[in-house]
Amino acid sequence: MGDAAGVGPELMLRLLADPPIEPACRLVILADWNVLRECGSRLNWPLPDCPVISLDQFSRKSQPLHDGSVVIVDDPQIDLGTFEVGKVNRQCGRLAFRLIQAAIDAVLANQVAGVATGPINKLALRAAGLDYPGHTEIFAERAAQGQPWCMMQYSPTITCSFVTTHCGYADVPGLLSVERIFDTILLTDQAVRRIRGRAPRLLVCGLNPHAGEDGLFGNAEEERFIQPAVEMARNRGIEVEGPLPPDTVFIPQRLAETDAVVCMYHDQGHIPIKALAFDSAVNTTLGLSIIRTSVDHGTAYDIAWQGIAKPDSLYAAIRLACRLALRSG
Amino acid sequence: MGDAAGVGPELMLRLLADPPIEPACRLVILADWNVLRECGSRLNWPLPDCPVISLDQFSRKSQPLHDGSVVIVDDPQIDLGTFEVGKVNRQCGRLAFRLIQAAIDAVLANQVAGVATGPINKLALRAAGLDYPGHTEIFAERAAQGQPWCMMQYSPTITCSFVTTHCGYADVPGLLSVERIFDTILLTDQAVRRIRGRAPRLLVCGLNPHAGEDGLFGNAEEERFIQPAVEMARNRGIEVEGPLPPDTVFIPQRLAETDAVVCMYHDQGHIPIKALAFDSAVNTTLGLSIIRTSVDHGTAYDIAWQGIAKPDSLYAAIRLACRLALRSG
Repeated sequence: MGDAAGVGPELMLRLLADPPIEPACRLVILADWNVLRECGSRLNWPLPDCPVISLDQFSRKSQPLHDGSVVIVDDPQIDLGTFEVGKVNRQCGRLAFRLIQAAIDAVLANQVAGVATGPINKLALRAAGLDYPGHTEIFAERAAQGQPWCMMQYSPTITCSFVTTHCGYADVPGLLSVERIFDTILLTDQAVRRIRGRAPRLLVCGLNPHAGEDGLFGNAEEERFIQPAVEMARNRGIEVEGPLPPDTVFIPQRLAETDAVVCMYHDQGHIPIKALAFDSAVNTTLGLSIIRTSVDHGTAYDIAWQGIAKPDSLYAAIRLACRLALRSG
Repeated sequence: MGDAAGVGPELMLRLLADPPIEPACRLVILADWNVLRECGSRLNWPLPDCPVISLDQFSRKSQPLHDGSVVIVDDPQIDLGTFEVGKVNRQCGRLAFRLIQAAIDAVLANQVAGVATGPINKLALRAAGLDYPGHTEIFAERAAQGQPWCMMQYSPTITCSFVTTHCGYADVPGLLSVERIFDTILLTDQAVRRIRGRAPRLLVCGLNPHAGEDGLFGNAEEERFIQPAVEMARNRGIEVEGPLPPDTVFIPQRLAETDAVVCMYHDQGHIPIKALAFDSAVNTTLGLSIIRTSVDHGTAYDIAWQGIAKPDSLYAAIRLACRLALRSG
């Protein structure tokens, strides 16, 4: 459900009301049932007719849930008396974190095949004493098992993976290394191969404008880190090209011939993703022992509980999780 | 004409063959006439029937050129015996630089109202012993007169100006200052006001992912430099908002309500411009004593002299120069 004060609850209600968005998919929705009911009542939306079990009941089940097509797992944590829509709330931060942990428990226990997360609010998490830059780091903490991992944003139009993500602009050059870039290329190749069902074509961005233009700009990060990593990946048989001038990579014509772009920093990929595939991109974490996707938008407090939030990104996240789960056997 | 070994010559021939692209515009084309003839002959394109005068004749004229609708100014510098299409060539670098200097002379002498430049090649310039990161710096050297200046990329869909441009990724934070950001906002407001004929709405990007997210990422560049500059501009009556999370600024819906975006670094703006307005963006330099626009693409050596280069960006550059010249009275 994500943060209760954001658009998460109404997205869950939409999901419950829609016909199955993916035939092979059996949904388990982790939420506060009181919050969903309150949201439905304020919007005058019908409430779903599906089994509601407690988080405790769910956690004690050692077997996958096979009955019915959807089940709500209820963790009643929000005091509706003090709760306000669209406001940072300690309770909401704490609940969002509890639901994520319960989801990770369930997937690690093989009760579910993967997790798709709704939007959370970092300030609400922080108000609850939980300091994480985002979902990705919460999942990595429990499921990376010391292995390399990275963030990837997937959409049919544009897919980007990231060598660095939630750090300051100035910290990026110090975080680049041949190994880290190589790992990101490798993880991207594996994931996109699974999604597309064939060997993907990858592009790798430079760090500097014009990819440094033969040493004209920058500290030769292209020659020192990116070029050797691309060569190592090519020697492994990966179809990859780079480092390329970053502003030439995201021209639609070029993207049409490309399966994924490896980006050096957050905004290098997030700017063109939001420009070209707003509402349809899905966030996923590669290299984890579990399948994990997420919506590509925030809690949108300004339009929360108005019934106007679009569910496209959530549905895309669920579809991608299904595809990854089915293809991973 | 730009670099003779690139797509410049064929773009000049297209321009000469097309009906006047802007009614109020009288074109003076600075080129090597032998190169244009050779290019036309290889492509089997008809040669234009217009007056050709020497650069020397042109430079000696103290009055604007009033006769006819187009004139070619010829500076025969290229030895066609050793010249090769699509190759870096010292001669081509030297000629491109001479033509730019002649154009600046002409506009400073009031012979012409503005300059639109074709693509040049930095390696060719360098081979000719001329080290410039780009056109912009050549023009700034002669026409900035110690005043603040900045680069702007204009298109109907997306317009960006730049606080920093041709420098390494790691150099950007050290180049930011309240004054520099304020100057860029001011120059952008003035230029876009002239283009649109009304007070523009401006957005300013943060430097860090999520604009630092309240100090979570980065070294508070948003609070130290960007926020104070935006407030100063607002106190001057400029309609400006920021610093904003960079990846939320370039969503098409938001751009539709925005006249221009002030970017902190080259790729922050060039990535979405090329993604959303490839072929139609125009480069211009704000703050100069002269009007100056340029194509938004390079020399494209790989497709040069094949007759397939699109003239859209050149035409847009000429149209924007005309508009700025007419509105500057």
